[in-house]
Parts: sequence; structure tokens; C-alpha cells
Amino acid sequence: MKRTIYLKKKTLAEARAIVSSKIAKLIHLGTETVPVVDAIGRVTAEPLYAKISSPPFHCAAMDGIAIKAESTYGATEESPKSLRLHQEAFFVNTGNPIPAGTDAVIMIEDVHLVDSETVEIREAAYPWQHVRAMGEDVITTEMVFPENHKITAYDVGALLASGHLRICVKRRPKVLIVPTGSELLEPVEIDLKSNPPSNIIESNSYVLSGLIIEDGAQPVRRPVVEDNAKKIREALLSDYNSVDLILVIAGSSAGSEDYTRSIIEESGEVFVHGISMMPGKPTLIGRFKDRPIIGIPGYPVSAILAYEEVVRPLLHQVLGLMRPEKPKIRAFPTRKIPSKLGTEEFLRVKVGRFGERFFATPLPRGSGMITSLTKADGLIRIPVHSEGLNEDEAVEVELLRPFEEILNTVTMVGSHDLTLDVLANLLGKLYPPVFFSSHAVGSLGGILAIRKGICHMAGLHLLDPETGEYNLPYIRSYLKGIEVRVVHLVFREQGLIVQRGNPKGIKGLEDLLRKDVRFINRQKGSGTRVLLDHTLKTLSLDPSEIQGYEKEEYTHMAVASTVSSGIADAGLGILSAAKAIDLDFIPIAKERYDLVIPAVQFEDEKIRRVVEIIRSDEFKKTVLQMGGYDVSRTGEELT
Amino acid sequence: MKRTIYLKKKTLAEARAIVSSKIAKLIHLGTETVPVVDAIGRVTAEPLYAKISSPPFHCAAMDGIAIKAESTYGATEESPKSLRLHQEAFFVNTGNPIPAGTDAVIMIEDVHLVDSETVEIREAAYPWQHVRAMGEDVITTEMVFPENHKITAYDVGALLASGHLRICVKRRPKVLIVPTGSELLEPVEIDLKSNPPSNIIESNSYVLSGLIIEDGAQPVRRPVVEDNAKKIREALLSDYNSVDLILVIAGSSAGSEDYTRSIIEESGEVFVHGISMMPGKPTLIGRFKDRPIIGIPGYPVSAILAYEEVVRPLLHQVLGLMRPEKPKIRAFPTRKIPSKLGTEEFLRVKVGRFGERFFATPLPRGSGMITSLTKADGLIRIPVHSEGLNEDEAVEVELLRPFEEILNTVTMVGSHDLTLDVLANLLGKLYPPVFFSSHAVGSLGGILAIRKGICHMAGLHLLDPETGEYNLPYIRSYLKGIEVRVVHLVFREQGLIVQRGNPKGIKGLEDLLRKDVRFINRQKGSGTRVLLDHTLKTLSLDPSEIQGYEKEEYTHMAVASTVSSGIADAGLGILSAAKAIDLDFIPIAKERYDLVIPAVQFEDEKIRRVVEIIRSDEFKKTVLQMGGYDVSRTGEELT
Repeated sequence: MKRTIYLKKKTLAEARAIVSSKIAKLIHLGTETVPVVDAIGRVTAEPLYAKISSPPFHCAAMDGIAIKAESTYGATEESPKSLRLHQEAFFVNTGNPIPAGTDAVIMIEDVHLVDSETVEIREAAYPWQHVRAMGEDVITTEMVFPENHKITAYDVGALLASGHLRICVKRRPKVLIVPTGSELLEPVEIDLKSNPPSNIIESNSYVLSGLIIEDGAQPVRRPVVEDNAKKIREALLSDYNSVDLILVIAGSSAGSEDYTRSIIEESGEVFVHGISMMPGKPTLIGRFKDRPIIGIPGYPVSAILAYEEVVRPLLHQVLGLMRPEKPKIRAFPTRKIPSKLGTEEFLRVKVGRFGERFFATPLPRGSGMITSLTKADGLIRIPVHSEGLNEDEAVEVELLRPFEEILNTVTMVGSHDLTLDVLANLLGKLYPPVFFSSHAVGSLGGILAIRKGICHMAGLHLLDPETGEYNLPYIRSYLKGIEVRVVHLVFREQGLIVQRGNPKGIKGLEDLLRKDVRFINRQKGSGTRVLLDHTLKTLSLDPSEIQGYEKEEYTHMAVASTVSSGIADAGLGILSAAKAIDLDFIPIAKERYDLVIPAVQFEDEKIRRVVEIIRSDEFKKTVLQMGGYDVSRTGEELT
Repeated sequence: MKRTIYLKKKTLAEARAIVSSKIAKLIHLGTETVPVVDAIGRVTAEPLYAKISSPPFHCAAMDGIAIKAESTYGATEESPKSLRLHQEAFFVNTGNPIPAGTDAVIMIEDVHLVDSETVEIREAAYPWQHVRAMGEDVITTEMVFPENHKITAYDVGALLASGHLRICVKRRPKVLIVPTGSELLEPVEIDLKSNPPSNIIESNSYVLSGLIIEDGAQPVRRPVVEDNAKKIREALLSDYNSVDLILVIAGSSAGSEDYTRSIIEESGEVFVHGISMMPGKPTLIGRFKDRPIIGIPGYPVSAILAYEEVVRPLLHQVLGLMRPEKPKIRAFPTRKIPSKLGTEEFLRVKVGRFGERFFATPLPRGSGMITSLTKADGLIRIPVHSEGLNEDEAVEVELLRPFEEILNTVTMVGSHDLTLDVLANLLGKLYPPVFFSSHAVGSLGGILAIRKGICHMAGLHLLDPETGEYNLPYIRSYLKGIEVRVVHLVFREQGLIVQRGNPKGIKGLEDLLRKDVRFINRQKGSGTRVLLDHTLKTLSLDPSEIQGYEKEEYTHMAVASTVSSGIADAGLGILSAAKAIDLDFIPIAKERYDLVIPAVQFEDEKIRRVVEIIRSDEFKKTVLQMGGYDVSRTGEELT
């Protein structure tokens, strides 16, 4: 089977140097003239010199009369001076030019009208009183903005004030986006419920279009082209001429259906194929005829990183702008993170401030996980020559969300429960909103996070087999010496989630031992796992006889989803997860789910709001509607 | 004369509390459904749960064949296994669903086709090899985004992946903008050269429109309404019903032509009139019928601050978003800055990093100075209960420009010269650009700034009367102990700038003593002033006999502008300033203008680029074209 082989991979720095030297030269942006009022976000193509001064004349800064200050000298309450209207004194409103010969304005409320032709002045004015001098703000011919200046909303004010009604700006770079892939569906109206798609909805081109607009360029999207060299070539040939830059999405990898490279080599030149970055390796940089072309990898995170690290600097360079940098903070990784030597890795992380330190928790690293970017607070670049991050060494994090949102985020670590989404949603409706971030690592993981001081609260449902009590025995034994408060969230039903109609006729845990039943388990340390193991022991059932006992998932929904897809016949989980995707449910136990909050956090404004929401009627009402929950003691503090 | 009196002024905090409680309630945003691909920047009106999982099925992560891993166990190079195509092995491309019964993918280049119906496997596959499991990224029914979430470009990827093609978002708040003022011109095509305007171009409404769009709302601008209560009332009555919020620009002050307050009182209620902030005092907050209305002051800086401090938080509140905060740094004021007790002042500043510290230099404080915002790097809030800032106490600065631009800015303090604009412009064309910021404080001011360590370079043209030498004697005496480098910029012609055609027949400095000649001087400490005083002394002319000797301006252009407007008949300045606005010029002296750069700065990359540009042919050529300059030794280092 034929396969394209990558060229010798380049580092990102090398690839960027090639883009900056060889690729930028291929783009010849012209200029255009636009009304200043439509110019926000555009980049000046020439230095702009003031055409008029601002103010354009000496003008009144108050409503009143313009006079020559000298003519009022000596005026007092006792011996006022009279001035003739329309000859020595002239009515003016704020912004009006003051008549020739005058040099001061007296406020209207200090003016005493004697008759229709005379005013009386009872206090002397000083020269230039209440007058804005011509050119006070801008003087004709001074440079207002240099070339390569990006116009802001404020700048429109300075430009109009200096007499610019239309200005010459750089044309927006036109970027052609060609999504390729036979498996891709256009995101048009399709009925997802009745036609479960066997294809994947194309999204990269729309994400990139959004980023291109943010960068001051103009996306031109083509419909999806199937994996067919002839059709891709046709798409490029019919369009390349009218744009400044071409992005071909997918097909730049090294598979049998990856045609981008050979098509470019036929009609141009490939400068880079393969960058030692992760995600983003299969990026390609070349020239198609006389147009620059970038092969963007097909996985969503790779596509975004290839865009941001390669295309964004190029667009900024041709527009003459500095590449925008994301704000940065330093944070401690919550665990050791090994990374591949020789590859620059872009790790997506959640960031939280606990005590005086910021901590970064890694999100899934797969390049297909778009939610690892949408959930991320920041990015850590692990350099090419690093083997990874250590827990006790702070590293730089580029923030993807506003800093104030991160400071206003409550981080919960521990067991997963669907009512946390309800909580998150209600917190987001406050003003100012409180953001809620939950990491599903199981109940025991939550307790350990509290001990390490890397979360605001932990969610637990840990049955103590000795006493039959929930949570408190674990808190007492694992969190010795740490003062905590425990807020009860919900009682919930755990049970076996089975396929719709229960085709295998499963009635209880005993049936898990049957040869025709495949089970999906939860990870060690999760409350559900503790519950399962305890109940199996009580019933004297041998876990080693359960098929699939060793296969673990991390959330209730993942268990339900595994059952729904037919990979497993049963898994232990909560009723609401089964209901959410319409599966059957066999109740096994009712359990208590509590939140553990370090006492030092408890008075924090945002934690207080979390507790308030939990105690609100709206929260309880919404949770009840989900089914499988008992809110009779929700919000109570346990001791 | 009748005058509106302010209500008892509110602090900004009090005014905001009223907006947040009384005004926000008056806005009832509905929702609308939009295609996800057009939803960037919109705010979710409900929590969005995944409609499908992503991937929606187990799918191939590579091009190859899908098989059941079990069927390959034991396969080696020596004893390969044969699988029947279309029954045990199925060709798949990246992204395709794997057929029921298969659980792994073998890459196409490891597949050996025996005949059209058989493939040979030479290495065992492991389960889930090269397969992306259904729901790996998103699981059906999980919450993808909560309510009140602002959609980013990345989010479009997550929404499409989770089956959302259209989503329900909040309607954009519609904001009516009514600019008022009889002195205002619409910024349509007018010939400024042949018709010097006696009016002022309306700009506030366009600046606010830009800010409103940034804030996710929708501006609806009305043409300028003149200062006439009836017409303003009519404009409001015909429009208020179709919008969520009304901004009336100007007319909310306390002058005779300020109608906003009385119009609102007729048909609604005024909650706040006058906020103890500067700029921005004449802000008004009220209700017009059932619509919220904000009276925005007419001066441009006041208008922007009233918008950003009062309207922006309101728009964010009704959209359910956090108010965006500007990034902040701490900087030392370059001088003591007194401020009015009882008023919250918003001071615009230039920011620079010199050594380890950031310094903030105040810009002009007038509310009519739009360039004090467009030139500013940041804002300092001087609190209501403060009397000002001290030189040695660092204060918080909210940044108005990206931090990396500030770090990449060269700050020059000292004498003003028009060639600095040429330099600034050429630096902005580099990649990445270097920004150039110059503060005109006179030559001596520049020397003092070097001594205080609050600039990167100083521009001087200081004649030493004793030796007749330029600059170096001053450097030796004022900068003792500071190692500096001196780079020669230009020789330039100084002379008397007089009105076009020289109507007063001025021939030299002697004529300044004439009774019919009014002079405009430069400030003490400027090189031009030193030159004037030295030359007057040489000629035995008595400065006290010069009319206007005590009137000072800070730049050559300001002097030229004063002459041009007829306020003065002559001023000393450079030829290029006279030429720029077409005035006549009587040469007096040729002088040397040099740049002094502390040696510690000289190796800094951005300073190196400045020196490179000064030495470039392009710089010299452009300067020569301006006239009045000699570039024969430009760029030479002096010792």
C-alpha cells in the first residue's frame, strides 16, 4: 500500500521562520479606502496626519457670552460694567466658535441682561476663561496614527476630530478554507434524533473562520470536498487565484487518502511537512502555484493549534501587527506530567487559585478532544527539549479565559453527579456570575485533592463498610488535622443501568456473574466502586467471575453510554444517568452525596454563593424533576 | 437666566448600584434561535446538553482495516494470519464508523493484500487500537455549556460535535444613540480644505457604537438632533419603543441649552444627575417612559468613561456576563499628581518599563482631549477619597494597550522634532513592530528624565552659550556618573515662523521689539528657548520689550498653530513646522539635534532597531524631503 512519508520534521520555531521569510512574501495585500466610521479593527496603510486642528477654532467651553477679557477688567458687584450685545458681547453655546476679537466666555448664569442690547458684568473675566483653544487636542499636520496601526473605537474619535472622514487601510487578507474528508457532513438542518448520523459534522472550517475574523482577515469557506485527489485539485484550481492564502483542512497527514501534499507538489512546492508539535504534527506549509497554502490537520485541537501557531503569526505579519499574546500566569501542575522529548506539547489545563498559589490540572491530551480546549482555562507549552513537568515547579500558563473569571471559579474535585450541572447553571445566572468547574476523579480523588489543597470542595459518596455510614468516617481518617465543613447535597439512587427493555433480563447483582452478561465497571476510588465491592461482598459474589469487571469508566454518563452502545450489558450508576439516555434501571441502593469544604474557604464570597444556591428552592425543584434524587435534607450542614 | 441644578452628586459606586438594581430591571431581553456557525460572541439563553455523543460511534483513527482484535492474536511475520475481506476485515478511512463486531483498526501500510478477498496480518492488534471510542469527547446529554455562556470560536467546534446546529441565545440589547448639539456636523463627505468648518464633526456616537458592538449589543444611531427641547423629545418619542436602552449624548450638563433632564422628568424619572467622577461628571441616569435612559456627557473622554463605567456594566449584567476587566500592572508615577478630593479621577497615562520598574507619565487631563485616550497606555483611577498620587508609591494601572506592545515601546522624552514621526512610522513597519512614544517636555526635561531613569532616550538641541557647542556640555554637567551614548539625529534650521506673506514685514529678532508685533514663546528648558535667549543676549535685545515673551507653548507645531490662527505674529521654531501649515519662515540658526541613550539601554533589541532605522537610507531620504534638515551626519555616534 502506498503511503506518503513525512519530510524531516521541523520544530515549530523552524516552521515559523520559514513562514515569516518564504510564505509572507507571497502575500501582496493592497489597500482600500473606507469611511472612518466603519474602520474599527482595520489597519492603517499610511501614516495619518491631522487635516484640521481640534478644536478647529477657539470655541466656547460653556454656554454664555463671548467677550474680550480686557473689557471686563475692574467689574465688581458694586461697579458692574455694561457691554453692548452683538458688538462687545456675543451669545455662544458650548462648542461654538468665539467671534474674532473675543478671548473669554462668561457663563450664562453670571450674565445679567439689562435690555435687549446691553448686558451687565459683575466680575472680571480672565483671558481664555471657558475657552478651548484651537488645536488644544490635535494640531493640523501632526501625525495622528502611524502606518500599521489597528484602529480602535477610541481612534474613530481622534480621526474624525482631525478631519479624517475616509482613510486608507490595508485590504483584509482573504483566506480560502477547503475542508476535505468523505466522512464529513455539512452542518445544515438534519434530524439527529431520527437519523443517527453515520458521518461526522464538519466543524473545523467554522472554528477557523471565527479565528480568522478575530485576526482581521476574511474567511472564504468552500463546501466539504471528498477525499479524492481530482476533486481537491479542482477545488484549489478554481479558487486559488482570488485569495491571499489557502487552508486545506485534513488530508495533510501521511495516510493513503491524504492527497494534500502530492497535489501541492504537482503545482508548487512543499516547504514543511510535519512539525514536532503535539497536537498539530501533520501540518504542511507550501506554495500552490503562486499562493501560500497551509495544510491544517483534521483533528479539532490540532487544527486550532496549527492555525494559532502558524497561520495567526503570518496574518499578523502581513498586516504589520504584533502577534497578540495571551495573558500569562505561573501555576504549579497538580501532578507530574511526562511529555515526549523532541516534541513541543500544548497541554490544556484547568487553573485554580487555592491559598496563595495557582494550580494547573491537565485535561485529556488527545487531539480529537475539542472539549479539552473549550473546558480549558489555559495552555502550558512543554518545550521540545523537556521530558515533562514536575509537581513542585511552577510553569507558565497562557490563559484562555479572562483572569477575573478564573478567580471567580469554584473548583470541585471528586465524584461526578448530574446535579452539579444544575448547580453550575444557577451559579452562572448570578450577577456577577460564579463559574463552577468540576473534575470527575472519584470520591477518594476528591478527598486527596482537599488534602493537597488543590480544590475548593470535594464531592463524596463513600460508604464505610464497617459502620454503614457515608463520608464522615473517610473524612475523619483521611483529613485529620484539616478543618472542614460538610454540606449535604442529595440522596440518590444507585442501581444497574441496563439496555432499554432489559433484553438480558437482569434483576440484580447476581446476574452479573452470568456468562452472557458483560459488565462495565467504575474506577477504583470512586464511591460507586466502593458501593459495588461492598455489596458484592455482602452477597458473597466473586468479582473475578464478572465479565468486564476490570474495564473502568470515570463517570456515570460514560457507564450509561457504554451500555447504550452495546459494548456492555450492565453497569452500576445513578438513575438520572440511565434516564438521561433512556435506559432501564434496577435500583440497588440509596446513598448520600455530600460536599466537603475546607473551613478556610467557607467564608469566601463565591463558596457562600454556592451554598446559598444549594439551599435555594430553585435548585431543589430542578433536581427533583430529574428523578432519582431525594432533596429532603439538601443544604444541611453535617457534623 | 434659567439653569438646571445638578441633583446631589452620587459617587460612581452609588450610581452603579442604582443601575444594577433599578435600571437593569427595565430591560427584558428575549431570546432567539441562531445557527451555531453564526453564534460566535452570542450568549446562551439556556443550558445546552449534548444531543449526540462525539464521536457519535466508535470510529477509525487511522486509514486501514477494521477487525476484531481477537482474530489477530498470535499473528507474526513468520506465521501471519489471513482474514476474509468484507467478512472479518473491512476497509475504513479515518473518521469512518467501524463495523459491528470489530474493535480495532490496523493501519493500511501494515495490511498485506493477498487477493481481492483476503488480507494477511503479520502482527497482532490489541483491542481499541487506532479506534476513537464513541463519546470519548462528549457524551449524549452531558451539559456542554451552561446558560449565560458567551460562545467563542472554539465553542462552535464543541457545539457542532455535540449535535447542535441551531441554539437559543439572548437577543442582542438594542441601544439607541441620539447625538444632540446644534454645533455638530454629520461626518459625511465635506471638503475640509475649501470650507474650513465652523462646526465640529460629530464623533461620540460612532465611538460608542464601536464599544457597544464590542460589548455584544447592537447600536442604532440617529442623526444629530439640534439643541431644541421639542426636537429632542420628538426623537425620543418616535424611537424609544423599539430599543432596550437609550443613550442621549450631550445636553445632560447644567447649561441653558441642556434639555435632557427636563425632557426625562416630563415622561419618566431621573435617578442620578451628576456623578463625582472626572471626566464624566454630567452623566444622567433615568427612565424615559418604561425605557432606561442614560445621559452621556458631550466631551469625548467624558462620553467614553460614562459609557465604560455605567453603560458597559449594565449591558453585561443583562446579558448575564461578567464585566470584562482590563489587565493591570503596578507603576510609579513620574511625578506627584494632585487630584480633587471627593472626585474619582480617571487619569490617562503613558507607561514604560525602565530597569525593573514600570513608570506612568500623566497625559493631559482635559475631558475634551480625545488624544489623551488614544495615546494612553493605561488608566489610573484616583479614588474619591484621595488627594492624588505620590512619586514613590506604585499604583494600579489598567492597561489600554496589549502588554507586549508596551514592552516593545521605545520612550523618548525631550525636545520635539517632526523627524521623530518619520522614525516612529518606520519602526512600526518592522516585524515585529517597535512602537515609539515621544513626550515633548523640552530638551532639559529630557536630560532630567534620563537622570531619573524614566525613559529610553532623550532628544536634545541645547546650545551652550559659553562654548557655542551643542548638547555635550549639558550632558557632561547634568548626567555626571551616568554612562550614555549620543547618536546624532539631524541638523535643522531654526527661525521665525510668521504669517503667510509676512504681513508685518518681520526680518529678524530685532523686529520682535516692535509694538505691533505679538510673539509666542517656547517653554523654559526647551532648546529653542535657550537658543532665543542666547541670541537675544548676543544681539543685546531686551526680552522684556517683546510682547508675548511670557506666553509659552510646548511644541514647534503649537507655535506654528498660534501664528497661523492670528493670536501671534511670530514665534521661533523649525522650518518643517512652518512648511507643514504653509507659513513663512525667516532663518535664524542651524542647530544640532541629538539623541542621548543610557549605555545600559544601548544593547536592548528595540533600541538597536531605532539606531538601525536612523542610519537607514529610507529615514534620511524621507527627512530630506521634509525640508529644513541636513542629514549629512545622521546616525553618527558622538563622544
